[in-house]
Amino acid sequence: MALLTNQTDINDTVLRSVAHMPTKSLSVLMDASFAKALSDADFMRIAVLLAEKSDTEGGCPIGAVIIDNETRKILGKGHNTLVQEDHPYNHGETSAIRDAGRIDFSKTTIFTSLSPCDVCATLIYMRGFQRVVVGDITNAGGSENQLREKGISVEILEDQKGIDGYARYRSAKPDQDLEDWQGVSAVMHKCSL
Amino acid sequence: MALLTNQTDINDTVLRSVAHMPTKSLSVLMDASFAKALSDADFMRIAVLLAEKSDTEGGCPIGAVIIDNETRKILGKGHNTLVQEDHPYNHGETSAIRDAGRIDFSKTTIFTSLSPCDVCATLIYMRGFQRVVVGDITNAGGSENQLREKGISVEILEDQKGIDGYARYRSAKPDQDLEDWQGVSAVMHKCSL
Repeated sequence: MALLTNQTDINDTVLRSVAHMPTKSLSVLMDASFAKALSDADFMRIAVLLAEKSDTEGGCPIGAVIIDNETRKILGKGHNTLVQEDHPYNHGETSAIRDAGRIDFSKTTIFTSLSPCDVCATLIYMRGFQRVVVGDITNAGGSENQLREKGISVEILEDQKGIDGYARYRSAKPDQDLEDWQGVSAVMHKCSL
Repeated sequence: MALLTNQTDINDTVLRSVAHMPTKSLSVLMDASFAKALSDADFMRIAVLLAEKSDTEGGCPIGAVIIDNETRKILGKGHNTLVQEDHPYNHGETSAIRDAGRIDFSKTTIFTSLSPCDVCATLIYMRGFQRVVVGDITNAGGSENQLREKGISVEILEDQKGIDGYARYRSAKPDQDLEDWQGVSAVMHKCSL
């Protein structure tokens, strides 16, 4: 029997633990029945708790989770690592896709805590995703239509905890936020104005 | 004095050595005068020799190099790692940008052995690059106009060694090539037709 089963209460403490567990160990740490019991809102909350993890590390609070559509097992997850890895473009989505590896993404769903940037939206399209769930279109947005035009199903499933957390971060670290979206040159240009 | 100076003959053996050296060690391994002596065609050849390195490892032969426009020092370099890192989207350009870290890309040039895919073209734009040099528009192409529309200077500097190498690889490993461009789902779909 695994640590997490379909008898386990689903709450933020449990979902935060899942967010922090290594993806490749999840098959040992949770029963298949536990994954099946998780709702779309639960997976979005895991993405938000990955964002929270990144925030705690001093990074940008954006997380993403990729699940198998049939088994609901988590195949990949991650968060932005601009600060943590000195990584100029690793967003929540790129992080989760990298974590999942070379799989058939057309049979999966990606949950992202924040509306995808143009790079991530293009990657989602070019890697064959058919379903995207977005948790925050208040602090960013616009790529949803671009994805829908490619025939991808895009659902908005707002998570207020994630929306509030991103707004707090943006207000506290505007330059880090700008760099994450538009690169160091945008911050430099801003300073020289 | 460093191993490589402005007295060093510039040939494929020397440029291949540069391709294989760790970027962060280049300041010890080469004099500033050596970097200054390298032409655009030499940097493109280093990108092609990074592609050759990837091919030798069983990977996709695409490489890229980022230099400082003023000092001509190499700030980042890399090659596709689809096979080597089980990495679903790490192309030559993403690899070099990741290697460079959080720098102001508007003061740099990126040399890529093959015309950028849409993800890489979007990333190049969103990270503030002003100058891109492309070594092969025979085996791929199209994103050059997209980059020019964003105000980026795009130059074509063909390297026949790179063009021939990519054509050989594509012919030998068509499925790996398709996966690298469009993901596993495109290969699966092709098989089910």
